[in-house]
Amino acid sequence: MVHFEPVAWTGSSIRIIDQTRLPEALIYEELTNTDEVIKAIRGLKVRGAPLIGYTAAFGLCLAMSSFPAAGKPEDFLAALDRQSDKLATARPTAVNLRWALDRLRQAAHLAIERGPLSSATQAMLEEARMILAEDRKIFRKIGELGFEVLKGYTNILTHCHTGALATAAYGTALAAFHIGREHGKDFTVYVDETRPLLQGARITTFELKLAGIQAILICDSAAAFLMNQRKIDAIIVGADRIAANGDTANKIGTYSLAVNANAHHIPFYVAAPWSTFDLDLDSGSKIPIEERDPVEITCFAGRRISPKDTMAYNPAFDVTPHRLITGIITEKGILTPPYDAVIRRIAEMM
Amino acid sequence: MVHFEPVAWTGSSIRIIDQTRLPEALIYEELTNTDEVIKAIRGLKVRGAPLIGYTAAFGLCLAMSSFPAAGKPEDFLAALDRQSDKLATARPTAVNLRWALDRLRQAAHLAIERGPLSSATQAMLEEARMILAEDRKIFRKIGELGFEVLKGYTNILTHCHTGALATAAYGTALAAFHIGREHGKDFTVYVDETRPLLQGARITTFELKLAGIQAILICDSAAAFLMNQRKIDAIIVGADRIAANGDTANKIGTYSLAVNANAHHIPFYVAAPWSTFDLDLDSGSKIPIEERDPVEITCFAGRRISPKDTMAYNPAFDVTPHRLITGIITEKGILTPPYDAVIRRIAEMM
Repeated sequence: MVHFEPVAWTGSSIRIIDQTRLPEALIYEELTNTDEVIKAIRGLKVRGAPLIGYTAAFGLCLAMSSFPAAGKPEDFLAALDRQSDKLATARPTAVNLRWALDRLRQAAHLAIERGPLSSATQAMLEEARMILAEDRKIFRKIGELGFEVLKGYTNILTHCHTGALATAAYGTALAAFHIGREHGKDFTVYVDETRPLLQGARITTFELKLAGIQAILICDSAAAFLMNQRKIDAIIVGADRIAANGDTANKIGTYSLAVNANAHHIPFYVAAPWSTFDLDLDSGSKIPIEERDPVEITCFAGRRISPKDTMAYNPAFDVTPHRLITGIITEKGILTPPYDAVIRRIAEMM
Repeated sequence: MVHFEPVAWTGSSIRIIDQTRLPEALIYEELTNTDEVIKAIRGLKVRGAPLIGYTAAFGLCLAMSSFPAAGKPEDFLAALDRQSDKLATARPTAVNLRWALDRLRQAAHLAIERGPLSSATQAMLEEARMILAEDRKIFRKIGELGFEVLKGYTNILTHCHTGALATAAYGTALAAFHIGREHGKDFTVYVDETRPLLQGARITTFELKLAGIQAILICDSAAAFLMNQRKIDAIIVGADRIAANGDTANKIGTYSLAVNANAHHIPFYVAAPWSTFDLDLDSGSKIPIEERDPVEITCFAGRRISPKDTMAYNPAFDVTPHRLITGIITEKGILTPPYDAVIRRIAEMM
């Protein structure tokens, strides 16, 4: 198993890996205020739904650590809401971001009810660390269940990057391969390069290589051809938000894979922690889809690809309807259709 | 209408546009021998099935122009076969290449039967020019029929580049938009960037912009999402080879589009000249698929994207089965299913 620390609290700042520089350089960077945190998330230095959540959570601790110890609790809570709302706007699609911030706000409220104001920031920091510690267990569980599902197959396709570098450990979709490695299983992982920002080409290949897992990089548009050639046994991807009916938002290109998987009778799995579910949304049509700067398509590494003033449309995510998903692998178990009933049952048990 | 001269015979060389440099620079280059011609085709300086055919045809003229006037006809014809076979290997999937070379070989044979050896090279050159002149008419016809098919729609998706820069004029898939422009029709063309070599981002946007046609660039993997959002009314693509049953080889990614078009009930058209049909192949499974250098995926503009030694698989084409094709637009008419019968009937009439 590869050990990365993609985010860490230093006591006075947040240390991150600048993932835009991978795989050319492994560069750590320190974020010292809310604006830097938001900029790092928006600029994809920090990416992957869970990691965005941790970084925003530490960002909230950072923001509140400068609140005067002699201040009023109600002022603290008002500032907490403002900072939390600000951080929540960093990216609109990933639900973990709001989820992590809400956990910290609850921890602060509880601390203030029970003790001095000075305990609130500490309680928030403990909550953020708790989220990471819980997530390590969660992602290991997701990896174990993912391996259960995939172990009968050899050639697996994945999209974007959903590994240890985007989470507390193991990752979501990639966790199955890391656990497989522990069991001596040799998967061949076909990696979609994942345009426009090439997370597959840059980061998934990097992580799989460090873990000693065989990776074959392909263009996103070649995936269907490989399915038709029977080179793909199964597909596994992560998720940025899952609605109450199982509809799943994930990196742009996921939906195209799911449609093709369906047409080729290839199992299509989603791996995601329970925190990815947004039960306030009854279907995927309500998930906000972030549109990013067209320059991500029209330029590469500062070099213009298309003529000046070319219009481009750059949605960062798409939504895969639940009917195209064979199973959703979460720490609560492997969910299978009908998703709405299963998801409701799990929610009721919590 | 935009006028390019993507290939021209100068009398002692072949002048081409180095399409790998578009849109940054419009650079003409002169090819003076067979090896340079093959290198230009393999390196995609010259690309698009029809243009590859013309360039190889002029390449054969160039190669044979140095044959001694006092030489023996049988030696000329043997050398002609050798040079033709050599040029035919430049790229394996496009059928126009072999088709154009065969037309020149027949012209040379006929000239030698009827007259002095010195007339053979001249006859070949005339034949090459004839192919271009015929093609101008053919592509105009394809454009007119393509416009007939598409004129009721507004938002059209295309893949790769199949315009005037890849043909004698107008292009195949793009011809419909050029003819539409003449009729005052305003299409919005969604342009797949077309990884790995970005012909859509680099060349289609360039050609459409010069022609004053609205183009919106997207990542290949976003096409399905746009179909689902009802942003695409129809799809039109070119072809590199079409089998006797209508199965169509075209740029990698075309098959994925066709599967998605089918799933979204969006009409999917292929536009190609009759010379693209290979009636020796009863189905697309027999079409050879070129695999290109993985470096096209792992690097961009000389800069490494993925870690050193990353394996990549880079098929340049895929095959779309005829059942996913709404119509094939050729200069002979708009073919619709059942393709095998229609194609056989046209072949019999020739």
